[in-house]
Amino acid sequence: MAAAAYKLILLRHGESEWNAKNLFTGWVDVNLNEKGEKEAVRGGELLKEAGLLPDVVHTSLLKRAIRTAQLGLEAADRHWIPVRRSWRLNERHYGALQGKDKAQTLAEFGEEQFMLWRRSYDTPPPPIDPGSEFSQADDARYASIPPEVRPLTECLKDVVERMLPYWYDGIVPDLLDGKTVLVAAHGNSLRALVKHLDGISDADIAGLNIPTGIPLVYDLDADFHPVTGGHYLDPAAAAAAIEAVKNQGKK
Amino acid sequence: MAAAAYKLILLRHGESEWNAKNLFTGWVDVNLNEKGEKEAVRGGELLKEAGLLPDVVHTSLLKRAIRTAQLGLEAADRHWIPVRRSWRLNERHYGALQGKDKAQTLAEFGEEQFMLWRRSYDTPPPPIDPGSEFSQADDARYASIPPEVRPLTECLKDVVERMLPYWYDGIVPDLLDGKTVLVAAHGNSLRALVKHLDGISDADIAGLNIPTGIPLVYDLDADFHPVTGGHYLDPAAAAAAIEAVKNQGKK
Repeated sequence: MAAAAYKLILLRHGESEWNAKNLFTGWVDVNLNEKGEKEAVRGGELLKEAGLLPDVVHTSLLKRAIRTAQLGLEAADRHWIPVRRSWRLNERHYGALQGKDKAQTLAEFGEEQFMLWRRSYDTPPPPIDPGSEFSQADDARYASIPPEVRPLTECLKDVVERMLPYWYDGIVPDLLDGKTVLVAAHGNSLRALVKHLDGISDADIAGLNIPTGIPLVYDLDADFHPVTGGHYLDPAAAAAAIEAVKNQGKK
Repeated sequence: MAAAAYKLILLRHGESEWNAKNLFTGWVDVNLNEKGEKEAVRGGELLKEAGLLPDVVHTSLLKRAIRTAQLGLEAADRHWIPVRRSWRLNERHYGALQGKDKAQTLAEFGEEQFMLWRRSYDTPPPPIDPGSEFSQADDARYASIPPEVRPLTECLKDVVERMLPYWYDGIVPDLLDGKTVLVAAHGNSLRALVKHLDGISDADIAGLNIPTGIPLVYDLDADFHPVTGGHYLDPAAAAAAIEAVKNQGKK
């Protein structure tokens, strides 16, 4: 076993205002709901209890990840650490499905198409109409992204491709500095990072579910590869959450 | 009148948990109270109404300024901008007075000594005992500051001297980049910055009071000097707050 050189902590944001409403969210900037806020605080408490204190935090440009970082770090008494942000850590852009009801979409397009959009590695939903109220075409925070890079829809493969440059150029330099790095982000941007770290195949990545609000810790070797797999700070809660998602799929 | 080249916004945090208790705070990391949270939100609403949207925020390492920035930026829909922090924007270190009751301190040391510590430009209170529960001797966030620079007490002159390097090296480069810069900080670190910007004398700076929660906007020329004086986004509320402090002093 290689020696652990670097410490990386991944934290997926908790429940948002649109979870209860059962809408596709993607890049729409909805807030955490009360349950999501509690998940963030609990995540920070787990870090504190484990003595795993981040020296720097990276977030997406979306409020639900930003506030998860803020609430979690405050609970861990690390609200004062440097903050870096990138659109490359954003949730998958859900294209024309953003703002749409999930059940309605399932009924409209059928289960096969629906599951393809949700779980296939390389089939994106149709692109969003820039005039849609759920488009980010006029959002100032993305103004510096040239059109050829700025997504109008994404599959997980697209997320991997746009996220990885930030892993190499944004996160790895902080690890190299000896910092314990916290990444507060989303189901799919974190799944993309875990796919890279653990070398998960395109076929297998759909089966990976990262529970919300439970810090996932990686010890990395000198080449930024995991010494062992990542481990959750509350393994029982993580296992239960993963099991619950599996059973959901079976219904 | 020189042409306005750069835009700087100063925001002093609002009421904290220790205001009501009437304790000297300094570097003790107390939170905003509910009134202070509302002041922060109102500050952000004023920015939004004025169309003055920060591109980057600088905060101290203290929770009351950090949360003021978070709450204000969220209210202005700018929660996603880059965040920079420095201990050089911290409140004045209040030395051995930190954690002490103000009325009790006044009774113990007499009005002359008390006012000298509070308002003189160059007389710091006695240094804090590193063993005091209100000392930051073991605070991880200051671990990278060598002892000869790390304050055990400060007068306003000391604050000016330790703040100015951050103005030049941290804030000016962002202005030069064309960014609208928000600085969320404290009564004395902002007073130190305003002293520098407006060229206020050592004798006159004691008379300057910056109201809490009201953005103070500076248009700076190409040499980073104010084109006119700073102006408050809610001038009536600012004038009333300044008047209230003056009358306090008369009682």
